[in-house]
Amino acid sequence: MHYKLALIGFGNVARALARLLVRKQDLLKSRHNVTFSFTGIATGSHGFAVNPDGLDIQKALELVESGKSISALSSMDVNDSMAVLQNCKADVMFENSPVNTQTGQPALDHIRRAFALGMHAITANKGPVVHGYRELTALAASAGKRFGFESTVLGGAPVFSVFRESFPLAELTSIKGIFNATTNIILSRMERGESYEDAVKYCQSIGVAETDPGNDVDGWDAAIKVAALITVLMDTPFTPQQVNPTGIRGVTREMIAKAKAEGKRYKLVCSAEKMGDKVTASVAPQLVDPASPLYGMMDSSTGVTFRTDVILDYSISLSEKPGLQGGPIETAYGLFADFANAVKS
Amino acid sequence: MHYKLALIGFGNVARALARLLVRKQDLLKSRHNVTFSFTGIATGSHGFAVNPDGLDIQKALELVESGKSISALSSMDVNDSMAVLQNCKADVMFENSPVNTQTGQPALDHIRRAFALGMHAITANKGPVVHGYRELTALAASAGKRFGFESTVLGGAPVFSVFRESFPLAELTSIKGIFNATTNIILSRMERGESYEDAVKYCQSIGVAETDPGNDVDGWDAAIKVAALITVLMDTPFTPQQVNPTGIRGVTREMIAKAKAEGKRYKLVCSAEKMGDKVTASVAPQLVDPASPLYGMMDSSTGVTFRTDVILDYSISLSEKPGLQGGPIETAYGLFADFANAVKS
Repeated sequence: MHYKLALIGFGNVARALARLLVRKQDLLKSRHNVTFSFTGIATGSHGFAVNPDGLDIQKALELVESGKSISALSSMDVNDSMAVLQNCKADVMFENSPVNTQTGQPALDHIRRAFALGMHAITANKGPVVHGYRELTALAASAGKRFGFESTVLGGAPVFSVFRESFPLAELTSIKGIFNATTNIILSRMERGESYEDAVKYCQSIGVAETDPGNDVDGWDAAIKVAALITVLMDTPFTPQQVNPTGIRGVTREMIAKAKAEGKRYKLVCSAEKMGDKVTASVAPQLVDPASPLYGMMDSSTGVTFRTDVILDYSISLSEKPGLQGGPIETAYGLFADFANAVKS
Repeated sequence: MHYKLALIGFGNVARALARLLVRKQDLLKSRHNVTFSFTGIATGSHGFAVNPDGLDIQKALELVESGKSISALSSMDVNDSMAVLQNCKADVMFENSPVNTQTGQPALDHIRRAFALGMHAITANKGPVVHGYRELTALAASAGKRFGFESTVLGGAPVFSVFRESFPLAELTSIKGIFNATTNIILSRMERGESYEDAVKYCQSIGVAETDPGNDVDGWDAAIKVAALITVLMDTPFTPQQVNPTGIRGVTREMIAKAKAEGKRYKLVCSAEKMGDKVTASVAPQLVDPASPLYGMMDSSTGVTFRTDVILDYSISLSEKPGLQGGPIETAYGLFADFANAVKS
């Protein structure tokens, strides 16, 4: 079976995905008899390219990474991502446009269009999960296609599929975790004596924080992840606005030093509880002690603890070792895993 | 779809499974249109019962828990577990006979027979996984049935299915973890100043250690779990004898106190590494420091860290809170999950 792939969004994660697909192509062929080609690419600022007979992906990577446009690769004139989708004849769309916490756009429209065109839709974008989960799940079901979003939480490490595949008929009663690496790095560095400002600068220097770090430090990135987990795993639509996060700006070095002296530390704790049909959630700095599974998660480590009616306190954590392996490859693997699970026979 | 169930072994775990199935029967019906009845039960010392029209499970639980035989419930004369299997006309066998680390018997024969009779075989018994994985997997495949063993490691919490379902086409390069609760409780209590002897007695008093604690403290229980993980997830047959474990008897209170003074602690660390086609494994007491995900696992908590070519250091841990929920229910859930995954449409 041959799959034509569209990449809507061609940033770090999408490019890591393209490389991972190429690296795993022999395995896909030998294990699942699956081959693929790239037939559409939409970038944020390096143009658009479509060729239903296949684009040269190495060439596209080289062009974008040297700051050039990919439009010369195109077999037809396309000027926006919808035109790419419409003309590329793809079987699978990977949606990696920038996250819009408030509306989920334009990812939401890309995914609607993908299903209408008979494609699987796989995204690392939390927006459409939070703003369109039920609608998109229904569209996917009626199109007989898959809506994959494994890579939206915990940096691509399996979370959704673990709960959905490995906890059949379990009732999820609570979720607790650390979901934002940037704030965890900042708090870890402040505990070692660095100022908030220097810690933010460090995060920006290694590329984990934006120029405006507000989305991370004010808790919105964590809040949208909590909302996504609640929406999907507790089957209850929930928005980041309902989570109403408190960020880490109010946590001072003095507070951290005092906590340390008491054998505790501050973490940006994310939590959600379901009692009957009612879900409550929060994102806020909290003191945790060594008995908590969150205590040991330092720097870029993130993790989640599920409590269910059958298995108490099942935790998943991801320790990223800076320098050993980057974040994009792990997020890319989440997209790849959704693809492999969609196409494996 | 109606499933007839055989329970081979009717100890704590099997009885917890029976109760869990009854508790979840409405959910099985409403979500998957699955109903079930128990048609065969083989106990270790409370007799045997078969009735293809269904046994009264509540009555069987009551009889065994008040020390009586279940044979009065039987519609025919059966005197061993093979006769139960042969006559109960079951669709699914739950195998929970005592573990035999050296040979995997009698579980191995029970599972062979179950497949020959057209049943799914689901077990919490590590013996047949280590001593028969390839054979039993092949038998299951040719019978079109499932060989389920999720509950053999990490006390029933999902591990095998997580790796197999959520890490498609990933290469597992190393496994590291704490797999034996008894030794972890002993080391935790010794760190708090208790003697080895008193800690062992405590474990016996709460039912986690046997009268002869050798299987736990000498590392054999941990070793068979390592062997099972290697056999299944690294696709390399491996025995506990090849792991050749070192237990915790040589770890003194003095060593533990010295480690504590240096901010470290001893754990019975299980590990396996795959380099090319070669697998090496060990179970031995090791000093771990706070940067290790194993450091925070105290008392009955257990866990595992997987390292792969795509996701670095993905950890799963299970914190059991003594008193809040028992071990048998979690192991029973592993069996239940295998059942639900085998029968869901």
